[in-house]
Amino acid sequence: MAYQYNQYMKHNYGAGPCILPQEVFKQAAQAVLDFNGTGLSILEISHRTSEFEAVVDETVRLIKELMGVPEGYSVVLLQGGASLQFSMVPQNLLGSDKTAAYLDSGVWASKAIKEAKLFGNVNVVASSKEANYTYIPKDFEVPADSAYLHVTSNNTIYGTEIHAFPKSSVPLVCDMSSDILSRQINVADFGLIYAGAQKNIGPAGLTIAIVKDDLLGKVDRKIPSMLDYKVQIDGGSMYNTPPVFAIYVAMLNLRWVKSKGGVAELEKENIAKARALYEEIDRNPLFKGTCKVEDRSRMNVCFVMENPELEKPFLKFVEDRDIVGLKGHRSVGGFRASIYNALPITSVHVLIDAMRDFADQQKG
Amino acid sequence: MAYQYNQYMKHNYGAGPCILPQEVFKQAAQAVLDFNGTGLSILEISHRTSEFEAVVDETVRLIKELMGVPEGYSVVLLQGGASLQFSMVPQNLLGSDKTAAYLDSGVWASKAIKEAKLFGNVNVVASSKEANYTYIPKDFEVPADSAYLHVTSNNTIYGTEIHAFPKSSVPLVCDMSSDILSRQINVADFGLIYAGAQKNIGPAGLTIAIVKDDLLGKVDRKIPSMLDYKVQIDGGSMYNTPPVFAIYVAMLNLRWVKSKGGVAELEKENIAKARALYEEIDRNPLFKGTCKVEDRSRMNVCFVMENPELEKPFLKFVEDRDIVGLKGHRSVGGFRASIYNALPITSVHVLIDAMRDFADQQKG
Repeated sequence: MAYQYNQYMKHNYGAGPCILPQEVFKQAAQAVLDFNGTGLSILEISHRTSEFEAVVDETVRLIKELMGVPEGYSVVLLQGGASLQFSMVPQNLLGSDKTAAYLDSGVWASKAIKEAKLFGNVNVVASSKEANYTYIPKDFEVPADSAYLHVTSNNTIYGTEIHAFPKSSVPLVCDMSSDILSRQINVADFGLIYAGAQKNIGPAGLTIAIVKDDLLGKVDRKIPSMLDYKVQIDGGSMYNTPPVFAIYVAMLNLRWVKSKGGVAELEKENIAKARALYEEIDRNPLFKGTCKVEDRSRMNVCFVMENPELEKPFLKFVEDRDIVGLKGHRSVGGFRASIYNALPITSVHVLIDAMRDFADQQKG
Repeated sequence: MAYQYNQYMKHNYGAGPCILPQEVFKQAAQAVLDFNGTGLSILEISHRTSEFEAVVDETVRLIKELMGVPEGYSVVLLQGGASLQFSMVPQNLLGSDKTAAYLDSGVWASKAIKEAKLFGNVNVVASSKEANYTYIPKDFEVPADSAYLHVTSNNTIYGTEIHAFPKSSVPLVCDMSSDILSRQINVADFGLIYAGAQKNIGPAGLTIAIVKDDLLGKVDRKIPSMLDYKVQIDGGSMYNTPPVFAIYVAMLNLRWVKSKGGVAELEKENIAKARALYEEIDRNPLFKGTCKVEDRSRMNVCFVMENPELEKPFLKFVEDRDIVGLKGHRSVGGFRASIYNALPITSVHVLIDAMRDFADQQKG
């Protein structure tokens, strides 16, 4: 059987599930046919084999290494996406008579707030909802008796990102789904970090959590085993059958991150990619950014056109250049260029060139 | 890049994640490189594209068609495995002042019982624990005021299977993880069926549930969105990002089931496979079955040797014939031959021949 390759790489600006490195796709396809020379597909091996246990170990080790996870924290591989974490976090950390502080910076944050209310009290310390979440609220107080402060580090829909994490005396819990591994952070500043895998970690179907161990076991309620971080940690991310293939691909992608020089090097490239694109948006008279400049995301670049009637023609114009996934979320409109780790800077320049050429065409 | 194929098919008797058809592996590998000629990998496409929405639709439609799911039932694609269903079922169906009936036929059933106790009262109507779960309890009463009766249709560890489902006046909830799609059942006899995908449906990382709609919405408690069947059904299995690749491979496998003539034809083959293997176990003086003959599973054939000292040499003997995954679960010992849908009858004959040849060798 002859395999059909994509003849050229598409410039995939999709918000997620999203682009991963081409070499990861090739290695993953190989493992679907024959995993590590075992004569078995990665899709048919038992999670209890030593070969797959090595995959889980390497995945966890690479996350610890690449993110500089200190002693006293556990890394655990889960399922259900950030949306399941929205309820798992308060179920594990918020006593029913206690209050948790939440920063409302977008739809995902407000979904997290909704789920937390099922388990205890929620204090929304600040919100940018009144401005359609086009900025990150900054001046707010976090009461010292809060169980934790929950923030969303990057808001995919609006293209905003927290560039300086708030400081307070309570544990910081962060939904880092869309910018984890894109920049250096100090894990010791956080009590719990969680992320759906399908941006910078791997394919959809895997969720990771980085948990400060001493935060666990402090609520009274009985927690279903699958939703108890302690049970999952003690089970070595294999309390039950894990999402084998998604973990394997995440491991391949984490190896790629390491081979690129780690998070520090990718951060430099991400800064360069975002700067180049925002510069064109600010320079090109046809386009304008949608959110507060100081809060602009390096992962999701949202922009619209001064003349909305040109948006459809522009989208068609870039599609002819193999740019896909650029349409903005319906609540913002316009365009969203998601420029995750695996999107090369060459792709960003293809988009910038298209913006320039389209502007020239309009003048002509 | 040249892909390495496994040179021959291994005879994969693993209990799960387990064998899937070779053609499914080939199609899955192709889609990792280029999905449907889109120029994108199945691992990088958005779940909101029309191409992937078609995959979800076809997966749900094939489950309905192959299992004959009647009107009034919803099929929903989830994550977290059967272990998460152990808590989701009582959270959705068991009022905190109500009692659910559970049949204890093995470790998985007893885990389901443990989780149900977090949400209401549990009445264990019968158990075969005293005999290490070597049979399926049959004569038991189900009180008419039970919220439901929960059973495990096939017990992978012990090799027992329910061949006649208990009849009662209350809804029947069934963990069908390890024998779904292996035999014809009447879905209308059930209130809720759930199954981890990683036996006869697809790869690990996907869970399906078939829910009688009118059972939902009857408990008072507030349920986290991700754990609420109603929310997941209303979201069309995409309340949040689903496990894209696992769903795609499940669709490929369901197409294969259909191409083989559907569940009725596979059931015939499964009966032939199980009969041939049990006949050899009963005939060959070196081997003996471990559970009650009338309750023997057609999916997991458990057996030991009359002389336990020969078990290691036999395992080595079959490994030389490319038979893998035959070691029994530690709580039973000996061997477990999992003969799921995708394991061809030719593989069963390779094992039977090995059992005969080994016996001849012992005599000689």
